[in-house]
Amino acid sequence: MQIVELVKAHAPITGEQIAEMLGLSRPTLRSDLALLVMLGLVDAKPKVGYTPGSAMTPGSQVSRKLLGMKVKDVQSIPVVVRENASVNDAVVMLFMENVGSLIVVDDEACLSGVISRKDLLKFTLGNTNAASMPVSMVMTREPNVIHVSPDESVIDAARKMIHHQVDSLPVVVESKAAQVSGRSRWDVVGRVTKTIMTNILVDLAMDR
Amino acid sequence: MQIVELVKAHAPITGEQIAEMLGLSRPTLRSDLALLVMLGLVDAKPKVGYTPGSAMTPGSQVSRKLLGMKVKDVQSIPVVVRENASVNDAVVMLFMENVGSLIVVDDEACLSGVISRKDLLKFTLGNTNAASMPVSMVMTREPNVIHVSPDESVIDAARKMIHHQVDSLPVVVESKAAQVSGRSRWDVVGRVTKTIMTNILVDLAMDR
Repeated sequence: MQIVELVKAHAPITGEQIAEMLGLSRPTLRSDLALLVMLGLVDAKPKVGYTPGSAMTPGSQVSRKLLGMKVKDVQSIPVVVRENASVNDAVVMLFMENVGSLIVVDDEACLSGVISRKDLLKFTLGNTNAASMPVSMVMTREPNVIHVSPDESVIDAARKMIHHQVDSLPVVVESKAAQVSGRSRWDVVGRVTKTIMTNILVDLAMDR
Repeated sequence: MQIVELVKAHAPITGEQIAEMLGLSRPTLRSDLALLVMLGLVDAKPKVGYTPGSAMTPGSQVSRKLLGMKVKDVQSIPVVVRENASVNDAVVMLFMENVGSLIVVDDEACLSGVISRKDLLKFTLGNTNAASMPVSMVMTREPNVIHVSPDESVIDAARKMIHHQVDSLPVVVESKAAQVSGRSRWDVVGRVTKTIMTNILVDLAMDR
């Protein structure tokens, strides 16, 4: 491993320098280096020297694994409510399903909005009539809803949640229902959450 | 790499079997195997044979990295409220700080409870007097609060959040304030959230 350690410490480093530092003959070194390069432990760059190889960076392999993991591989069942349901119905469903937000759908089951604990809390505090209002009055409405497709990577979904400061995203596919004013409509097929991301992290730690 | 591939496919496999399958002489094979073992690509188990080495399982290195990551390395600043603050104050602070829950502290700044959007929503819906009530009436109260210490691993914190179905945890250390009825009291030094776990996941994916 001495050669690999030297390359890690001094990269880029030339063959001459390695030979001198280890007191090895060039032919011995040449065959050792050839094997290390073949194994991916060392990279040889012409006119530059030797640098640590891709097999030395376990991160890159986990990175590839994570970037290859799709939303459809991890999504959970969507928890939906109709847009004419009352705020009271929505709160009851939030507690029964123990979720942080509900996906609101229209009569054709297309995405209409999302409604979160935060939206509901803001609306209900000190508002005695809140409970009987329709959720469509409180929800974040399409096209302002951030969503994700089943074929996007899990990491892109995670980034969207962080960037837009939301705890979950509806997973949607383009709907065959008629467009409204030229805009796409979306069928809801799942949801992804920060809880799912936390679970993936725990699974990675167990991946020995 | 042929030897490593064979070992992966047939582990455990003996030196005799490898030599036969590759049509190599035993001396040639012996020096190649010695190097592969030294590089950690193959493990030699006496009386068993050769198995894939630890350097072949990148997961294990990421696992070690994750298990070595401490809560104190990733925690954020705690968002606290006094137990005699009103529900209205708590809701305002939740929105101003844009957090999902607040940590409630007593007069000596020791952990007294936690209060979440969910607790507040349940309490405020249809309750016209809710806004002026003290948060201590609504909060989850010590010793029922799940917390974590700065030296616990991030993965243990993630597991606690999943197991107890909460989105954040107060990070605490034992307090020097007088004990109450023989129980430990806790100083609040931080908080960890599923958002932080989601961020760690994104960072791992970028770790090339």
